[in-house]
Amino acid sequence: MVTAPLTLRDVSESELLRRIFPFFRASPGVAVGPGDDAAVLRTGPGTVATTDSMIRGRDWLDEWSGASDVATKLLTQNLADVAAMGARSTAVLVTLVADPATPLDWAVDFARTLGEQAADLGVAVAGGDLSSAPDGVLMVSITALGDLDGRAPVLRSGARVGDVVAVCGPLGRSAAGLALLQSGADPRTQPDGIRGWCIEHHLRPQAPLTEGPAAADAGATAMIDLSDGLLRDGHRVAGASGVRLALSPTALHGDVAELEPVVGEQALDCVLAGGEEHSLLATFTGAAPDGWRTIGVVEAGEGVTLDGAVQQPRGWDHFRA
Amino acid sequence: MVTAPLTLRDVSESELLRRIFPFFRASPGVAVGPGDDAAVLRTGPGTVATTDSMIRGRDWLDEWSGASDVATKLLTQNLADVAAMGARSTAVLVTLVADPATPLDWAVDFARTLGEQAADLGVAVAGGDLSSAPDGVLMVSITALGDLDGRAPVLRSGARVGDVVAVCGPLGRSAAGLALLQSGADPRTQPDGIRGWCIEHHLRPQAPLTEGPAAADAGATAMIDLSDGLLRDGHRVAGASGVRLALSPTALHGDVAELEPVVGEQALDCVLAGGEEHSLLATFTGAAPDGWRTIGVVEAGEGVTLDGAVQQPRGWDHFRA
Repeated sequence: MVTAPLTLRDVSESELLRRIFPFFRASPGVAVGPGDDAAVLRTGPGTVATTDSMIRGRDWLDEWSGASDVATKLLTQNLADVAAMGARSTAVLVTLVADPATPLDWAVDFARTLGEQAADLGVAVAGGDLSSAPDGVLMVSITALGDLDGRAPVLRSGARVGDVVAVCGPLGRSAAGLALLQSGADPRTQPDGIRGWCIEHHLRPQAPLTEGPAAADAGATAMIDLSDGLLRDGHRVAGASGVRLALSPTALHGDVAELEPVVGEQALDCVLAGGEEHSLLATFTGAAPDGWRTIGVVEAGEGVTLDGAVQQPRGWDHFRA
Repeated sequence: MVTAPLTLRDVSESELLRRIFPFFRASPGVAVGPGDDAAVLRTGPGTVATTDSMIRGRDWLDEWSGASDVATKLLTQNLADVAAMGARSTAVLVTLVADPATPLDWAVDFARTLGEQAADLGVAVAGGDLSSAPDGVLMVSITALGDLDGRAPVLRSGARVGDVVAVCGPLGRSAAGLALLQSGADPRTQPDGIRGWCIEHHLRPQAPLTEGPAAADAGATAMIDLSDGLLRDGHRVAGASGVRLALSPTALHGDVAELEPVVGEQALDCVLAGGEEHSLLATFTGAAPDGWRTIGVVEAGEGVTLDGAVQQPRGWDHFRA
């Protein structure tokens, strides 16, 4: 006899909470954790706060991504934004808005991965929200909070003429992974070569989280999380700072060459316009620190150039894509 | 010639942000507001954080609620949770996850109301997230942050035998308003009598936000935002505190009598089990302060009683409702 898997409809809200709260470990930074009207956090004088959401059918497909993958990607997206301010993530609030027909296992797997990975990163899951959604809808969201530990925040607006432009983390892998999946690659491809690394980076991205505060300490003048593509996010830094980012094709050659065996002629486009990479882009007065590679310089002007040619801000736009 | 109203698809993400950012006013508590990777808030040592979402079709119907109504309700839900900890709300992050076919006016009206009402309450809109959703989906979410201003948080777990149980704000009006709307009442009914007050409270609830910190200062031992019904939320306080809340039918008589002309025999049920009220329930050692009315006492035992009879925790359950 086969029994149907349990869904959220089969358990009460309090029963669901009883199943997932144990995944959210206590933390010294959290005075009151999940279960009251709100969480209470022990905070310093400068708290960084950001929020990002994912919805099934736009931000992931169940055919490619399980609950654990979604938890990893959502956590990385949010924590990368905190890191890009030069801050250390301390706590997250998590929201699940789900059709009651959603498998209970999905919610439990999501919560387990979120709790485990957050704990590994020293981040507390301090609270959240559970709500029901119409048929077929599954949406998850995180708000991440971070501590500047006394640093000044690193804004998008601080780049100055003469600074170097540098990146920490890969470029274009997520977009190349997406292209592979769209052309039929198995999402379970083992990450033991560039094709696998690209798929892995698309489904379960990791960001250089500790490099954000380290870059702030090293004097980064501007910083951004690369979520919508190098050109689009580069334009954001250029626009906010009132400068031009002049990128060097030579410096990007290695990134492009790495992806050519994966996506052929699309490699340059992945590097320049691929979203969801969650590497960090920053500008520094003087040399970039270890772990970063210089890809250009800050010039007077506006926008982004490649080998001197003006580049349009291609990349991900939520409502027009 | 009639032109179709603009939708989110007709503008870029940056153009939409340019239209809504002006509604979010600067605040001394916000060092970095919307537009960077994350907001930066000036915080005290104890920061309260909570999040709550609303999705079209479950939490509101377009036939009854416009974008401005949704903004009001979402803001109240979140700020009431902060108040129920004894804290003063300082900032919110706001998320809009929308089908690109959503009218641009909806997003603009939502942001305008949110910005105006937050400003009136001394709360900054510090940041947020815009994302696209599959066809027909419209979801909004807020994360609210608050400052305890040196107070200890008022938890659900602090009620002690001998305390009085008190409420600040109405009971059952939101549920009675919902019942009226479900039986065909005009959502634009003027709020100049009890029927109108009920509809108003369901569509555009206000919460006694300043009474939360005031209750904390007056020695509240436990407190909760009444979002899921007096019995269900009362059970939460009872369970967390290891006590029984013994409610007095005499004390609730006025609440019931007020709603009888509106919903007849359902009046008691609205008072006991009606959700989305966003009044505050608290326990006090000694008399409740001005502005609160005593509705019972804390006894040894468990659960909630009415006139000595044990009450089941009826009320809203997200996945079973």
